[in-house]
Amino acid sequence: MEFSSYLPIWDKLTHAQQEMILGSVICRTVKKGALLHNGRTDCTGLLLVRSGQLRAFILSSEGREVTIYRLFDRDICLFSASCILHSIQFDVTITAEKDTDLWIIPADVYKQIMEQSAPLANHTNEIMASRFSEVMWLIEQVMWKSMDKRVATFLLEEAAIEDTDCLHITHESIAHHLGTHREVVTRMLRYFQREDMIRQTRGVIWITHRAKLEALNDG
Amino acid sequence: MEFSSYLPIWDKLTHAQQEMILGSVICRTVKKGALLHNGRTDCTGLLLVRSGQLRAFILSSEGREVTIYRLFDRDICLFSASCILHSIQFDVTITAEKDTDLWIIPADVYKQIMEQSAPLANHTNEIMASRFSEVMWLIEQVMWKSMDKRVATFLLEEAAIEDTDCLHITHESIAHHLGTHREVVTRMLRYFQREDMIRQTRGVIWITHRAKLEALNDG
Repeated sequence: MEFSSYLPIWDKLTHAQQEMILGSVICRTVKKGALLHNGRTDCTGLLLVRSGQLRAFILSSEGREVTIYRLFDRDICLFSASCILHSIQFDVTITAEKDTDLWIIPADVYKQIMEQSAPLANHTNEIMASRFSEVMWLIEQVMWKSMDKRVATFLLEEAAIEDTDCLHITHESIAHHLGTHREVVTRMLRYFQREDMIRQTRGVIWITHRAKLEALNDG
Repeated sequence: MEFSSYLPIWDKLTHAQQEMILGSVICRTVKKGALLHNGRTDCTGLLLVRSGQLRAFILSSEGREVTIYRLFDRDICLFSASCILHSIQFDVTITAEKDTDLWIIPADVYKQIMEQSAPLANHTNEIMASRFSEVMWLIEQVMWKSMDKRVATFLLEEAAIEDTDCLHITHESIAHHLGTHREVVTRMLRYFQREDMIRQTRGVIWITHRAKLEALNDG
């Protein structure tokens, strides 16, 4: 079964535990833009990405957003199943950034096995530590980096994810990723264009001078 | 043994595992200001606070600081033993904010037991989720809250920790907690004083109008 190859500790589960997962896992296909999880009260289950792209973000009371991490093929989302751990005391929203195929492992099944299985509990620890590292990176960005560097970093990341220097992304979407206002992004991109780092035409941002953008990012 | 009462899952460990911990745990007393852990390369071990207070913070390349969480009696610090999990990819510094008595569990002993014991692995998960929640709180503060609210929140927290409205704390220390510059804190406290929320005299900040400070914090 293909599914087993997505959980690296699969072979360390007992046969009964494997059967429990296989008997409960749900396969789902969602469209780009779909809302998969919304806040702490939902306990949607663990989301395992077969192919596609998800985005986890937090929302302010005024509706501002900031991306805390993104999930790609073979990544697993724990925080859509926050009921598996009492101490998860925060809300994240998860949406599909691309059409996505995923598996959903019901939270109660995962929790029950995790309580018995040291390998699954330790694997969960590694996943959480990995997301923790991403969130710490975000704090460092927000605390110490100016917005021009953050926008440059975001464009370069986006180019790496999409494997192209031609980015179809709106100013508003960039603002939501970075937790700022659209006007701030628009101003910054105009500055990048004046400095010949990018060119903007009809909803497309072209990276025209990658080295300059990288220098800004590193500086 | 007193130590066992500090690990809530103690009774779920095997006798051999308990012996391993008891045989390796180190008791230490440190003075206020002591540096206990510095960055990812150190693998100091897990710090269990018997009594006192620790502070975990991150440092920018320019030497700016921001507190990510504080540890009090019975709290345990995982990130001083980052080698127990591969996926911990960030640096924290840990210092004593007060004279502190603590136990240190060597990282290799903890790791070895955690790999076998589902209860210890799950307990570790809860600790990490709890720190994660604190860090998410910090992100929300930094992203959506203005500095006047953050300073008000900090003074109220400090008063709760110390159980007094008379705070012996420098402007520089507040700046280090919040990840800002001393001048910003000084300006803010001068404003609070003009608004009769606090009074400042010789290194002491008195909270004189708690309700006003709380209203700012909630607003």
